[in-house]
Amino acid sequence: MDIVSLQQRAREIIEPGAYDYYAGGADDEVTLVENETAWQALRLRPHVLRDVSGVDPSTTVLGQPVRTPVLLAPAAYQRMAHDEGETATARGAAAAGTLMCVSTLATVTLEDVATAAPGAPRWFQLYVRKDRVWTAELIARAKASGYTALVLTVDVPVLGRRRRDEKNKFTLPTGLTMANVGTAPPKVEGSGLAAYADSELDASLTFDDIGWLGGLSGLPVVIKGVLRGDDAVDAVAAGAAGIVVSNHGARQLDTTVTTAFALREVAEAVGDRAEVYVDGGIRRGTDVVKAVALGARAVFIGRPMLWGLANGGAKGVEDVVTELTEEVVRALMLCGAARLDDVGADLLA
Amino acid sequence: MDIVSLQQRAREIIEPGAYDYYAGGADDEVTLVENETAWQALRLRPHVLRDVSGVDPSTTVLGQPVRTPVLLAPAAYQRMAHDEGETATARGAAAAGTLMCVSTLATVTLEDVATAAPGAPRWFQLYVRKDRVWTAELIARAKASGYTALVLTVDVPVLGRRRRDEKNKFTLPTGLTMANVGTAPPKVEGSGLAAYADSELDASLTFDDIGWLGGLSGLPVVIKGVLRGDDAVDAVAAGAAGIVVSNHGARQLDTTVTTAFALREVAEAVGDRAEVYVDGGIRRGTDVVKAVALGARAVFIGRPMLWGLANGGAKGVEDVVTELTEEVVRALMLCGAARLDDVGADLLA
Amino acid sequence: MDIVSLQQRAREIIEPGAYDYYAGGADDEVTLVENETAWQALRLRPHVLRDVSGVDPSTTVLGQPVRTPVLLAPAAYQRMAHDEGETATARGAAAAGTLMCVSTLATVTLEDVATAAPGAPRWFQLYVRKDRVWTAELIARAKASGYTALVLTVDVPVLGRRRRDEKNKFTLPTGLTMANVGTAPPKVEGSGLAAYADSELDASLTFDDIGWLGGLSGLPVVIKGVLRGDDAVDAVAAGAAGIVVSNHGARQLDTTVTTAFALREVAEAVGDRAEVYVDGGIRRGTDVVKAVALGARAVFIGRPMLWGLANGGAKGVEDVVTELTEEVVRALMLCGAARLDDVGADLLA
Amino acid sequence: MDIVSLQQRAREIIEPGAYDYYAGGADDEVTLVENETAWQALRLRPHVLRDVSGVDPSTTVLGQPVRTPVLLAPAAYQRMAHDEGETATARGAAAAGTLMCVSTLATVTLEDVATAAPGAPRWFQLYVRKDRVWTAELIARAKASGYTALVLTVDVPVLGRRRRDEKNKFTLPTGLTMANVGTAPPKVEGSGLAAYADSELDASLTFDDIGWLGGLSGLPVVIKGVLRGDDAVDAVAAGAAGIVVSNHGARQLDTTVTTAFALREVAEAVGDRAEVYVDGGIRRGTDVVKAVALGARAVFIGRPMLWGLANGGAKGVEDVVTELTEEVVRALMLCGAARLDDVGADLLA
Repeated sequence: MDIVSLQQRAREIIEPGAYDYYAGGADDEVTLVENETAWQALRLRPHVLRDVSGVDPSTTVLGQPVRTPVLLAPAAYQRMAHDEGETATARGAAAAGTLMCVSTLATVTLEDVATAAPGAPRWFQLYVRKDRVWTAELIARAKASGYTALVLTVDVPVLGRRRRDEKNKFTLPTGLTMANVGTAPPKVEGSGLAAYADSELDASLTFDDIGWLGGLSGLPVVIKGVLRGDDAVDAVAAGAAGIVVSNHGARQLDTTVTTAFALREVAEAVGDRAEVYVDGGIRRGTDVVKAVALGARAVFIGRPMLWGLANGGAKGVEDVVTELTEEVVRALMLCGAARLDDVGADLLA
Repeated sequence: MDIVSLQQRAREIIEPGAYDYYAGGADDEVTLVENETAWQALRLRPHVLRDVSGVDPSTTVLGQPVRTPVLLAPAAYQRMAHDEGETATARGAAAAGTLMCVSTLATVTLEDVATAAPGAPRWFQLYVRKDRVWTAELIARAKASGYTALVLTVDVPVLGRRRRDEKNKFTLPTGLTMANVGTAPPKVEGSGLAAYADSELDASLTFDDIGWLGGLSGLPVVIKGVLRGDDAVDAVAAGAAGIVVSNHGARQLDTTVTTAFALREVAEAVGDRAEVYVDGGIRRGTDVVKAVALGARAVFIGRPMLWGLANGGAKGVEDVVTELTEEVVRALMLCGAARLDDVGADLLA
Repeated sequence: MDIVSLQQRAREIIEPGAYDYYAGGADDEVTLVENETAWQALRLRPHVLRDVSGVDPSTTVLGQPVRTPVLLAPAAYQRMAHDEGETATARGAAAAGTLMCVSTLATVTLEDVATAAPGAPRWFQLYVRKDRVWTAELIARAKASGYTALVLTVDVPVLGRRRRDEKNKFTLPTGLTMANVGTAPPKVEGSGLAAYADSELDASLTFDDIGWLGGLSGLPVVIKGVLRGDDAVDAVAAGAAGIVVSNHGARQLDTTVTTAFALREVAEAVGDRAEVYVDGGIRRGTDVVKAVALGARAVFIGRPMLWGLANGGAKGVEDVVTELTEEVVRALMLCGAARLDDVGADLLA
Repeated sequence: MDIVSLQQRAREIIEPGAYDYYAGGADDEVTLVENETAWQALRLRPHVLRDVSGVDPSTTVLGQPVRTPVLLAPAAYQRMAHDEGETATARGAAAAGTLMCVSTLATVTLEDVATAAPGAPRWFQLYVRKDRVWTAELIARAKASGYTALVLTVDVPVLGRRRRDEKNKFTLPTGLTMANVGTAPPKVEGSGLAAYADSELDASLTFDDIGWLGGLSGLPVVIKGVLRGDDAVDAVAAGAAGIVVSNHGARQLDTTVTTAFALREVAEAVGDRAEVYVDGGIRRGTDVVKAVALGARAVFIGRPMLWGLANGGAKGVEDVVTELTEEVVRALMLCGAARLDDVGADLLA
């Protein structure tokens, strides 16, 4: 089943406020739409008459082998989509041979997620709370549980205006918590998450904190939420091992450049000094191949993963990744590329 | 409540002919739509990892401090939106810490507007009537009432064809007058305002009149209605202290360049020799930040102010400014800018 | 009443097959739509603070004074729109102070049109029939009746596929004839006009025929239907006194460049060596000003004239020209131009 | 009847699953739509005052004379459209004076197609099966039956995802077979054709195989499915006599460049070293003229041929070609071109 169909079914399964939380974007949702159309609008110039009989979509990310360039993004609150939440996602990721990035705002503790799929590659997404002591403890827990990189989200000095959540007075359903934090967002007029984020998250974060995180953890630090080449270069200079080109799924600042647009600039600026990934609007195998052509080593999917999770738990997540990877394989063959390394910038018009 | 919702409610409150007067534009209303979409179509390249914990949206305009770059435009006939009209707007502006520009065509005398919010910054918008003696007296009244700048509207040598007003045979409701003038527009076939403007306003105004106004009043003169760099430069050379890039809310000449488009050219041409402002189509905090990135010192809002006024009088006006300013603050933070001065041209793609 | 409203009313007045003949275009009517939107899509950069109190839209065409740059195009078969047909149009043109171009395919003889408005300026549009003797006689009749220029249509070596006419099996209603020719198009499967044109009109016409026509008639020759600078230059070199940039109202070849697009190229190529006019899609005073900014000396209107004719005969034609001229005047003033000569290329973005 | 109308009628005649097979494209069918709109979006700059009284649309392809530049594409499975299938198409092609390219996947043997129209020009489209011996035998049969060129399809190393076929579980109706192969695609979950193609067709084909085919057959080899200049140059260097710019009717890789876009690049890269043809989205005579202006020697039509075949068998195919050729003739005349050789690149804006 393709992603559009999955989403339609997920909409019937998930509670409306939770669905809106997953599906919605900031303000007028201009970028929400455009993230997707930007990939679709890129035009391919496929090669022919290359031997693609041994096509192989596998790669590595920060040295870890994965069977597909389709990685799982650190979406929050996954138990709203399926009762098993992040543990199901972890098992699905392992089955599909991909990497999962677990959110600070998971509804299952990072330790339980690790236990659910012990041998599978996993990274930990970090929000830095004003309480730096607590933040340091969280990082230590992640390292102890076998997470092999920290993915620092840098595009939330304040939460974006998500009008759907404000209207829905969004908070977690009764019984769910931000398990790593131990609490749920408050029940308020407007968005409970906004109230939480604006009071707890650190708006004074700078490039200097990259070094702090690296030193503290001994883990490679990936910076998520970059849309400019100069910022990416500064992040790498400050020690970042990877950059996720992202506008937070269009949930923070509306009318930014699309991630497809920003990827080209960031990848050119960074060159070989760090790995570059991208998320936002990836819905087809051709989107993945286009991202690789623009310089991405791999892509993250967020909403498609949630629709899969809602539809079938771990199996649903596995199926989404497998189906999208099958599309990647076919797109590679039809582009005359047997491996991701064969995909060059000239593949795009 | 955001501006789209406010407008929908205002449409139910305001008398239809008056609503059309406020909401409508010239001819086919191409520019009316495009003024808004032009801001939305600009793409942001936000910075990350800047310390924005001390964000502050305040600025000054011609030396006067304001708590926000969102200023109030000189819309005519405000008592059609709310019984207290311009006096309510003045109190709302003062409460929100912004500047109000009062129209020659106000439905409350400029003296009464001044009295309503004595300590608040206020400018006076001027139409030059053929009767220059009367015009000089009007300027003297404005100066005596503490208006600190004259905003000369230069894009009405003749009134634009506002088809809605023609169809509605628009004039002021019984009981309202152009209080500074002492009369109401005539009741005629077509637009009464067009009949008034075409017979009374001076179509022979030139750049030389800027000096005349400055000398006469001893006040700084701001030229409103400029869409070209060369005209802006000529106005500054003739003594203008400020330029409002404006197409009169798309009410005069249809299919002009949008104000977002013209702003870049005007700001580059003027440089530091005068302050540049802009109005037309500003509906989101991101629009304001984009205007600043293009070179504006501040923006004016017209219709949003009227929708606020209709919905809640002084409090409604205050709320519109406060809400939009909150959006500006959030947009600044999400762009990595702690102050308006941190917003550069590179923020736009 | 503006042109859109006039057209809606005309549609109710005119017989459906005749309406389709007037309103329709070739093939998929891509250019029919685009001719109009191309003018609307041009963006104006109006000047301010020019003295426009003495605004005057008058001009001359080939030396003949007209009170407006809005001329009347040589539309065929005008008695389908109104019983008085071309004679009414001639009286309306005279009343409005403009020039009428009478079609070879008029439903009133060129002599009767001349008699209807003896003192008014008139040009004669010419189709060259394979029968050159007949053509020469027609030219002699036009000269004898006081037509002061020949407008040679060059874009009909074969008729365009007008799908509406084919479906309607279009021919003239009973009682009407091509009065200059003395017959009506045949009744056939498909378009009767196509059958007539393909059998009678000369597909071997070349630039050499311009000299033939000039020598034969002693009249200035205007070439109508040019869309390229090189063709215009060749026509002028062959003796043309004027060029009408036209795609025949989008009735011949679909998906050509728009006339607004072609005008710039043609006007630049021709320079001062001949007068350049344009038709196709002009619906607003701003369109006329834009055409002048692109290098046109005047414009022709076809369908708007027919809608006026259908609505009110001679008075209807007069009203359309007068209303459009009033829009031109207002657009000039709002652009800071007191005369057509003040309109420069810099008025467009 | 024009092609849109023919398609509507064909939709009522053909069995829904077969109609979807013909009409559909890969994935989101972005390119399916865009192939057509790309031709329509090109703008013509017609010449006037050329003698076009002797207009002639005939040409040659690889030396064989054809009365029209509209050739018939190698669509598979034509007996789904009409009981006589490819034999009817062959007779229609002969009557219209054009060339037919017969598919490997025809539902009539290549020998029977040849017999149906013995004197008419015909090429054979080749899919290379992994079984090269069988492939060589197929080529020998084609040569023995008078096919004068091999058209090697190079854009199917794997089948595209045709969602309609997957949903319909597409296979051939009972009683029909791939007559040259002797079997029908399997009945499976998803597309039976995809199952067949993925198991049988050779994904290891390279440029070297062009020489193999040429040597084996002694026939000129035309490479079909090229979208890039560099691939076209490599194919010519490897011995190709012709290139068909094609994205397989948008049935393989979605969001490729359109064939109109690719044609310009390919034609410029190849120059005079080989003939260049194009297919995909040609629906009007103007599309054909535009293709010639971009460098095509002739065009292929696929779906329009099938709609004609469905509507009227051999006569229906003949009518489609004749009607489209009549449109080509008219477009040539209206562009001032008496022959295809008169159509230059300057005809496009």
